[in-house]
Amino acid sequence: MYTFDDIQSVITSEVEREIKNLSETEPGNLYQPIGYALSMGGKRLRPAMVLLAYNMFRDNLTDALPVAMAVEVFHNFTLLHDDIMDKAEMRRNNPSVYKKYNENIAILSGDAMSIMAYEYLLKSNSARLPEIIRLFSQTALEVCEGQQYDMDFESSLEVSIADYLNMIRLKTAVLLAASLKLGALAADASEKVACQLYDFGLNLGIAFQLQDDLLDVFADQSKFGKRIGGDIVANKKTFLLLKALEISDIQSKAVILNWVQKEEFNPEEKVREISGVYNQLNIKRITEGQIDFYFQAAVDILDEVELPEEKKTEMKKLARLILSRDH
Amino acid sequence: MYTFDDIQSVITSEVEREIKNLSETEPGNLYQPIGYALSMGGKRLRPAMVLLAYNMFRDNLTDALPVAMAVEVFHNFTLLHDDIMDKAEMRRNNPSVYKKYNENIAILSGDAMSIMAYEYLLKSNSARLPEIIRLFSQTALEVCEGQQYDMDFESSLEVSIADYLNMIRLKTAVLLAASLKLGALAADASEKVACQLYDFGLNLGIAFQLQDDLLDVFADQSKFGKRIGGDIVANKKTFLLLKALEISDIQSKAVILNWVQKEEFNPEEKVREISGVYNQLNIKRITEGQIDFYFQAAVDILDEVELPEEKKTEMKKLARLILSRDH
Repeated sequence: MYTFDDIQSVITSEVEREIKNLSETEPGNLYQPIGYALSMGGKRLRPAMVLLAYNMFRDNLTDALPVAMAVEVFHNFTLLHDDIMDKAEMRRNNPSVYKKYNENIAILSGDAMSIMAYEYLLKSNSARLPEIIRLFSQTALEVCEGQQYDMDFESSLEVSIADYLNMIRLKTAVLLAASLKLGALAADASEKVACQLYDFGLNLGIAFQLQDDLLDVFADQSKFGKRIGGDIVANKKTFLLLKALEISDIQSKAVILNWVQKEEFNPEEKVREISGVYNQLNIKRITEGQIDFYFQAAVDILDEVELPEEKKTEMKKLARLILSRDH
Repeated sequence: MYTFDDIQSVITSEVEREIKNLSETEPGNLYQPIGYALSMGGKRLRPAMVLLAYNMFRDNLTDALPVAMAVEVFHNFTLLHDDIMDKAEMRRNNPSVYKKYNENIAILSGDAMSIMAYEYLLKSNSARLPEIIRLFSQTALEVCEGQQYDMDFESSLEVSIADYLNMIRLKTAVLLAASLKLGALAADASEKVACQLYDFGLNLGIAFQLQDDLLDVFADQSKFGKRIGGDIVANKKTFLLLKALEISDIQSKAVILNWVQKEEFNPEEKVREISGVYNQLNIKRITEGQIDFYFQAAVDILDEVELPEEKKTEMKKLARLILSRDH
């Protein structure tokens, strides 16, 4: 069994090889931005999940690398296009692709990345390739649906918590879930265990997004890559906001709605005031309760998987790592 | 054998069925723009080419419909994103998708279409599905490369006719070529004949794009959907412009370059003056000669295909139709 660290270094070297290839491919204005997008990195969580799942059944990681790379390229494609749509000028402390190049180049490079993801899948020798491509496509389309719901919700006040959970399932969780299932399919695991890993990933993904919502408001600014309260400023319909609207009395609700509807405001004041309401309503504790709920659901599913315990060790570590629980 | 008209009505009804499905799928802001993009139609040339090629070997068109639809959805995706990049507000006398909805919706709907194209392919029962997906992906990536070269060339004066031919091969011809080869693969035709059809389509596609360049300047305005001279106004590096620069004396070249470099100008005057130079240099006749060259190359390849003559009749009609030679 490989550790998560081993797996990350396998992925890093594969991504670096790809970036080097891209730097030598013409037209440069199409392929260099793709290399740049891939170089911005992060934890490479999704491809690591493909390989971790694969490694529960098989030893030779090389066979699953194309699938892992497909997921990483696809994920970075969605970030690239999301940054255009959200007008996000920075990504992990670097200018986002559309800022560094221009919007047209960013649109087209993203389009090419989405196709390259399939080209990666096609390099897999798996006998279950059609199934792999089918799951990948279905997931990719769901991610688009999630992004559309997210955009729709920005300008709506009629969003329920059920709507929100469906949105984050699509936008975030299905890709984590599919990464695990794709790894299992590439390893020719049984349908049962592949589905269990999917469900494990789905619950973990929802917990992960709830955690992300929470950190936006309650992170330690010195350790947080972005500005605290970005979601509040942008009127993102996060779990925190929706839960606050649900449980607040008429007075607190008025405070929130007043800030949400203001066109001109001081962002720091808005963040301070709405965080104040969150504190009064104990939103942090409530959200943590939800995160625990989904995390536990994930762990329970993993426990049911009929594999020796040592095969699950790294996956459990990953789950804790994703929720920043042991580092 | 089906006629081209038969095949077009098969495609039209399939596209309409898809548009109806899309109108009922959530989120509406993702799927309705896709239905709108597909409804703008046109001649549905590419899916017709898939089915025509298929029909050279097999009778039951239904089996090739998913592949034909994949090509149509992909082609309309490229138009949708190209319109954003080119700031083209109209498409076939309708507002383009980004104008009718907004740019973010257009980006995301396009992304979803590109994935839906693969979902269509995956509906095919062909035993050669991996080969089909591989050719489709490679072609899709080449189309992106062609679009990038086209954008690069707009701001460059160092474009050779060889560069131009490579650009239109990628941007236009490979998709026509691949449509035919995909039809042949779906019909489980031999590799030899599938490649011959590809080469036939490639030459036809280059002739088609040259013809498109020619029509931009020399079409009959009353029959032409767009404004005459659009390429001239936008400094598109068309065959006409590049050939004119190649063969003009120093004086005519100065006239062209002067217009190309002007930032502010009267568009009609620019079109009139540059067309004037084209007339002096006999550019229409020269371009027609090139079109004939590629058309003849296409026909010669089709003649070599070892199939009874009657199997090629509709394909030959299509070739003439594409170049508007008999209607």
